[in-house]
Amino acid sequence: MLTGPVEIVGTGLIGTSIALACRRAGLDVLLTDTEPDHVRTASGLGAGRARGAEDEPQLVVVAVPPDALGDAIRAALDHAGDATVVTDVGSVKEPPLAAVAAHPRARQYVGSHPMAGTEHSGPLSASPALFDGRPWALTPAPDSDLAASRVVEALIRLCGAVAVRLSPEEHDRAVARTSHVPHLLASLVAGTLAGASPDHLALSGTGVRDVTRVAGGDPRLYSQIIGANATAVTALLTEVRDRLDLALEAVAGGDRAGLESLLAYGRSGTRAIPGKHGAAVEPMAAVRVAVPDHPGELARLFADAGASGVNIEDVRIDHDPGRPVGLVELDVVAIRAEELRAALESKGWATLA
Amino acid sequence: MLTGPVEIVGTGLIGTSIALACRRAGLDVLLTDTEPDHVRTASGLGAGRARGAEDEPQLVVVAVPPDALGDAIRAALDHAGDATVVTDVGSVKEPPLAAVAAHPRARQYVGSHPMAGTEHSGPLSASPALFDGRPWALTPAPDSDLAASRVVEALIRLCGAVAVRLSPEEHDRAVARTSHVPHLLASLVAGTLAGASPDHLALSGTGVRDVTRVAGGDPRLYSQIIGANATAVTALLTEVRDRLDLALEAVAGGDRAGLESLLAYGRSGTRAIPGKHGAAVEPMAAVRVAVPDHPGELARLFADAGASGVNIEDVRIDHDPGRPVGLVELDVVAIRAEELRAALESKGWATLA
Repeated sequence: MLTGPVEIVGTGLIGTSIALACRRAGLDVLLTDTEPDHVRTASGLGAGRARGAEDEPQLVVVAVPPDALGDAIRAALDHAGDATVVTDVGSVKEPPLAAVAAHPRARQYVGSHPMAGTEHSGPLSASPALFDGRPWALTPAPDSDLAASRVVEALIRLCGAVAVRLSPEEHDRAVARTSHVPHLLASLVAGTLAGASPDHLALSGTGVRDVTRVAGGDPRLYSQIIGANATAVTALLTEVRDRLDLALEAVAGGDRAGLESLLAYGRSGTRAIPGKHGAAVEPMAAVRVAVPDHPGELARLFADAGASGVNIEDVRIDHDPGRPVGLVELDVVAIRAEELRAALESKGWATLA
Repeated sequence: MLTGPVEIVGTGLIGTSIALACRRAGLDVLLTDTEPDHVRTASGLGAGRARGAEDEPQLVVVAVPPDALGDAIRAALDHAGDATVVTDVGSVKEPPLAAVAAHPRARQYVGSHPMAGTEHSGPLSASPALFDGRPWALTPAPDSDLAASRVVEALIRLCGAVAVRLSPEEHDRAVARTSHVPHLLASLVAGTLAGASPDHLALSGTGVRDVTRVAGGDPRLYSQIIGANATAVTALLTEVRDRLDLALEAVAGGDRAGLESLLAYGRSGTRAIPGKHGAAVEPMAAVRVAVPDHPGELARLFADAGASGVNIEDVRIDHDPGRPVGLVELDVVAIRAEELRAALESKGWATLA
């Protein structure tokens, strides 16, 4: 389906990473960038070769900054043959679609957006593994060519990502929530650290590092991304501002119950994020083990469970008030429960049905 | 200096982790909790033994929820001998100090606060490595006993953490910035995910997971922590609200320059966070290598640099416009620069002085 050559327009972090993934799969990769140095760097990394005059790409991947997307996609369509497919990896999907709507080859364009990146940019941070297991939105328009969608979907698979189909409009509302508003709030938190006393900043733990990490990204790039999605971002950010006012009232007014309820609502949101890799949740089973109430016995059980090689997803413990023994439930994926049970019994543990 | 026994009052995540670190160091550890089951669980994990009537701790570590701290510290002082030291690990330091101010043994109390934890709670998530390289605030009052401070500092070292001395008032302003306000904002972002469409949430990448991770913590515990630091949190949260209004105006009004400047301010804040482990930055040196502009040469250089075992902290590349060769600068800690240079030359690379 995807046989190449694949042309990458824009050899930054995302473009070069896609190029490396295509090279890993043995495809011929053509590199284009307005900066010839960037092509030389990407080529030096093994990402492909500069595009020559005779080359005819099967698929063109436009990976340029948001403000340059529309022009670059139109240019790719201008040079496209009848069978050429054009996609882009821009973070907002309605504006590029609008930019190509009037183009005679508009049906050969299908937008996409990999949910991957780092706070670093440029080809030197690229990796063919950048997309492993990550969601990658595929956003065909109603009149996009079906075969073109399938070629872009093949690229997504080749990069190790998971395709998520959404309309361009749905996509833009979704990323306001999962990306743009989180980025803005992370940036506001990070702003409170600028100019703070080093004595105070010495208390920074992993929490504040996690919260602010994305705010280390390029301000110019993110102002383009967020600015291109202004309608959806404004609506959601207004909701957040109103809830922030509630939080402020609760803290200032000593309203513990109100504060706790806001925090509980937030926790329910963290649980709404789908599992790693967006995969369906595997069925689980509990292995129940009787554990004597002697110092160190639980530690010995965990060591034996660890040595079994079966991953323990959760643990519950129930001390039996009447007896000198506790009941420990180890949650594992159902298909490996028997293996864990056998491993523990071989070490002398009593398991319960 | 710290010879034990160490009594842990409250065998949750933090208390049990400290107990495990003390046991690792060979100290006798006494466990106390209002829930006898929790003591049995912690003891089963190898964290120590239930305190007996005859036991005389050298150091009492109070690790109970914020609202119970004052009473628990006073109770520990009530039972203290002349040489007993009492500390706590509460997240806010002025309220417990005020609670013991009138106690005849107040000088034997020195507050502290490890900057460690996970979004999980309870003894089953405990680990003796929880504090490795983490900051741990030590907050003596002006009339605290000097020897008592030294005993608590010995505990911090024993746990592998880095002591940071601050007054209780400074501490509370610092954690509003590095912990409580970030937690509240993370919770507000997470709240926008609650009830969102699963199709949209499927686009969640690492960014939103990082931003919201701390919001998975226990709402009851964090409402106590943040509520106990209301003055400092209210002041800082009001600043954040005002900057959020500016961000909203910039996005809604299409003010790209204003948006970029807010994001740039945030990025400067991410750079103000001190390095891992709060350690001083080591001096760096650049190793410069000439690299031919052939496909894959940069990749080969990075493979050879990786095989040298010297960690590359940063990379810059400069294509010489006049010649078919690029100049790559590899930044490494200065004391290992010669080692990297020798390793690369042994693989045939030309390095420059």
